[in-house]
Amino acid sequence: MTTETPRRQQIEDAASALFRDRGYAATSVRDIAHALDMQGGSLYAHVASKEDVLWSIVSRAADRFNAKVGPVAIGGAPAAARLREMIRAHVGVVTGAQKDAVVFLHEWRFLSQSRREQMAERRDAYEALFRHVIGEGIASGAFKPVDPRMAAMAILSALNGIATWYSASGELGPDEVADQYADLFLGGLADSQPNFMMRTFA
Amino acid sequence: MTTETPRRQQIEDAASALFRDRGYAATSVRDIAHALDMQGGSLYAHVASKEDVLWSIVSRAADRFNAKVGPVAIGGAPAAARLREMIRAHVGVVTGAQKDAVVFLHEWRFLSQSRREQMAERRDAYEALFRHVIGEGIASGAFKPVDPRMAAMAILSALNGIATWYSASGELGPDEVADQYADLFLGGLADSQPNFMMRTFA
Repeated sequence: MTTETPRRQQIEDAASALFRDRGYAATSVRDIAHALDMQGGSLYAHVASKEDVLWSIVSRAADRFNAKVGPVAIGGAPAAARLREMIRAHVGVVTGAQKDAVVFLHEWRFLSQSRREQMAERRDAYEALFRHVIGEGIASGAFKPVDPRMAAMAILSALNGIATWYSASGELGPDEVADQYADLFLGGLADSQPNFMMRTFA
Repeated sequence: MTTETPRRQQIEDAASALFRDRGYAATSVRDIAHALDMQGGSLYAHVASKEDVLWSIVSRAADRFNAKVGPVAIGGAPAAARLREMIRAHVGVVTGAQKDAVVFLHEWRFLSQSRREQMAERRDAYEALFRHVIGEGIASGAFKPVDPRMAAMAILSALNGIATWYSASGELGPDEVADQYADLFLGGLADSQPNFMMRTFA
């Protein structure tokens, strides 16, 4: 079994690149095997099905988001500071495992129904971390009384978009990108402007 | 030719729904024909190829975004007011032709290379409208000195995300959703906070 884990990992990595580039539906088990110089048949010694590989990639990505963002969300810092750290952590996962993130975001709908439902629940629980911290910021008076659900979706959609354009060889590192996004969103959420200022944009 | 146009339109509408639900790669010409109770062969009297239908859907969506957002972007109103109207117009297109918007956003990468390059140029020109207005807001002192490219991408990613969750039967209409997003982004861009306020979030 000691050689099993790296092979499975190689298969998932090759599949993740193919799913990102061509999409899950247009990638065959044969394509994945070919990318690894394997026979299609021998791939089945390591994976039960193409959908099984997708499930591994998507689960692994969901695990990473939870492991990085979860502890920050429930910490004791003020909501604004926590939200900034959550944004940094989320962007860290998106940019650190970029192809998995793209597959997680765009290809998860090709999971079988029961797995798709499981993943929808996990995604909702993850989004709830953001809704919760935004709600706390509103309750403490630090944030404006926005709809936490909509603000959380706006933030997560924007952060997830980074997966489609971020380049590790570009000018900005993940934390710098995250901080620019955090400045924009925390500025928008902050309840620190007198009312007459707000009205100029209403 | 008078019956040609509605048939072509029906084909594009059926294809758009299939491309959104299953993805372009997993949809065959036969599937599109089947959705319209046609024979696969007779579909080819109306369309040259599956990719040709994708191109029509994607071009039509790009035309709509430009037609609605372009005139607002170059108007004479202050940058903040224009950006709010651009956000409304963009959300109007996303929610008004939701399945085309999803196909435009997620399936355009399956276009042939030359068409993909054309579309990448059109998308960049469209994003430039947002960068331009944000840049004007910075120049006038209304906006903080953010990176217009990153702010434009954050805004567009967030707005495009609406295509994946918006429901016409939900509580909020397109303009109400757009205004909540606009409040968040315009609040984040506004250079109306004294520096010591900004520092509490730095």
